[in-house]
Amino acid sequence: MGGDHAPHEIVAGAVHAVRERGLSVVLVGSPRVLYEALADHDATKEVPIVRAEEALAMDEGALASLRRPRSSIAVACHLVRRGDASAVVSAGSTAGLVATGRLRLKAQPGVLRPAIAVALPTHPRPTLLLDAGANAEAKPEMLVQFAQLGAAYAELAYEIDSPSVGLLTIGSEPEKGNKLVRRAHELLQAASGLRFAGNVEGHDLLTGKVDVITTDGFTGNVALKSVEGAVRYAFAELRAAVSESSLARLGAALQRSRIRELRHRLDAEAYGGAVLLGLNGTVVIAHGSSKAQGISAACRLAADLSGAGTVAAIGDRIVPAHRAPRLW
Amino acid sequence: MGGDHAPHEIVAGAVHAVRERGLSVVLVGSPRVLYEALADHDATKEVPIVRAEEALAMDEGALASLRRPRSSIAVACHLVRRGDASAVVSAGSTAGLVATGRLRLKAQPGVLRPAIAVALPTHPRPTLLLDAGANAEAKPEMLVQFAQLGAAYAELAYEIDSPSVGLLTIGSEPEKGNKLVRRAHELLQAASGLRFAGNVEGHDLLTGKVDVITTDGFTGNVALKSVEGAVRYAFAELRAAVSESSLARLGAALQRSRIRELRHRLDAEAYGGAVLLGLNGTVVIAHGSSKAQGISAACRLAADLSGAGTVAAIGDRIVPAHRAPRLW
Repeated sequence: MGGDHAPHEIVAGAVHAVRERGLSVVLVGSPRVLYEALADHDATKEVPIVRAEEALAMDEGALASLRRPRSSIAVACHLVRRGDASAVVSAGSTAGLVATGRLRLKAQPGVLRPAIAVALPTHPRPTLLLDAGANAEAKPEMLVQFAQLGAAYAELAYEIDSPSVGLLTIGSEPEKGNKLVRRAHELLQAASGLRFAGNVEGHDLLTGKVDVITTDGFTGNVALKSVEGAVRYAFAELRAAVSESSLARLGAALQRSRIRELRHRLDAEAYGGAVLLGLNGTVVIAHGSSKAQGISAACRLAADLSGAGTVAAIGDRIVPAHRAPRLW
Repeated sequence: MGGDHAPHEIVAGAVHAVRERGLSVVLVGSPRVLYEALADHDATKEVPIVRAEEALAMDEGALASLRRPRSSIAVACHLVRRGDASAVVSAGSTAGLVATGRLRLKAQPGVLRPAIAVALPTHPRPTLLLDAGANAEAKPEMLVQFAQLGAAYAELAYEIDSPSVGLLTIGSEPEKGNKLVRRAHELLQAASGLRFAGNVEGHDLLTGKVDVITTDGFTGNVALKSVEGAVRYAFAELRAAVSESSLARLGAALQRSRIRELRHRLDAEAYGGAVLLGLNGTVVIAHGSSKAQGISAACRLAADLSGAGTVAAIGDRIVPAHRAPRLW
């Protein structure tokens, strides 16, 4: 029920995941709405529906998850909790999803807060950014845990040995930044089992300089959306530039399909793969603007992660923050 | 003396500003170093040198400005203070420049903190982002002042009538974001003389949705550098994509010069024009990686702003924060 293009693109993505990827998908939401959307694909017999009376609107935040215990996302989490589903995929309100996930699935032992990990499309392997928006306020201890969650994810899901970790801030020297990152810098240097590579800046997000970038969810979300907007802007400017002269137009005609392909890849790679780490259950967050293909890819990712037991294995590696009992 | 390509590119930019733009430029720093660099351009008689014993290193921060009262940037500020120069241009350590500017030029009456304003290359007119990095920690009242500084700058320097102001955060609803932006949202709604358009997100930086975007210097700097890195990334990916096939190569050959031109424009427009607002004096911050052309453009901007009395006029419009006497 969630996402800018719900229900049709979401349902189309689910049907694609079932037919083309061989996955088992359950749709959770209004049976009438979902049945009709499935009927458009002649798929009413292929994709089961689980009833949920309500749905969180895109603009509903964390509190709505308490007010609506029967929202589609709450019911989906409940299916995972009961073992009737292996993972949740949603393109709905991120704040609602995070809050509902924390409430229904609970954090893994020792985890202060779940964090959203996004795989940025760097070469030759992705850089994982977290937290990309689950926690608008963070404590220094959380940034250490986000680094641990990200490093474990990089090892288990991307087979990166001993991943390097960078701290997102506004200068390369340890004393640069705000209070939060200066303290986090000290804690990261002292943390055992982490290969801390020091501070990184906004322009390092896409250079592949480090394997994991840790930051608070406010900064991470602003940075991620800035990147998203800038890539879109660069391609729009490019299109404008290449139509300015007929010589350039000729060149553009030759390249058009290739450029479209590239833009598509950037979009899909960067935003199809956000995972909420630190919960007792696999939760994949599809971009709010996802169309069928993005949803289908998110279902694939969710199935791969839950099939490999990745999220559970990440939880086993978390070192509880020493200060946790006192502070939280 | 400051910048990744000092002294040669800085001096070359100064010479260009003098010869091609008809400006009067004074170089401040080590006479020996600067004289030699000027000699490379046969310009020792065209560009006067003012001696400064020391220079802040790129990695030196705010404290260095106290330790080094005879740094080149301190001497340059002193020239402005005494009326011997109209403006300061520097590509050196931003933290050092901001701290030295505050110490030597002082904030304008009622200004809590100076802020860095960057003109983003949106169409048809720029969006001003501030604070782009002067204050890593900010209070909600400062975000209101940054909005006022930005709105005044938009009106006076870009002739934008009644500029709209957006607050950078991670969701469009007033209650989204962290404590700082939620409180700033309330204050901005209540502020008289500001056309507050509500929250904006990272992907709105380059869409021209609002004329001024206010944020703390930490978030603003991360967002700006994320944009910078993403634009660079998009063009690098594009170059890689268009050389993959010979058909595409042909198209690329036709377009190459146009793409280079576009990339250059994005770089120059976005980062040649950072201004430190809120001080008793015009201070233009050139990008650390500036080459001669960027320095020359920064000199042009500095001359235009000081010639028009823009920075002083902005100060006259600042409404002192009501809470200032109590909190600061």
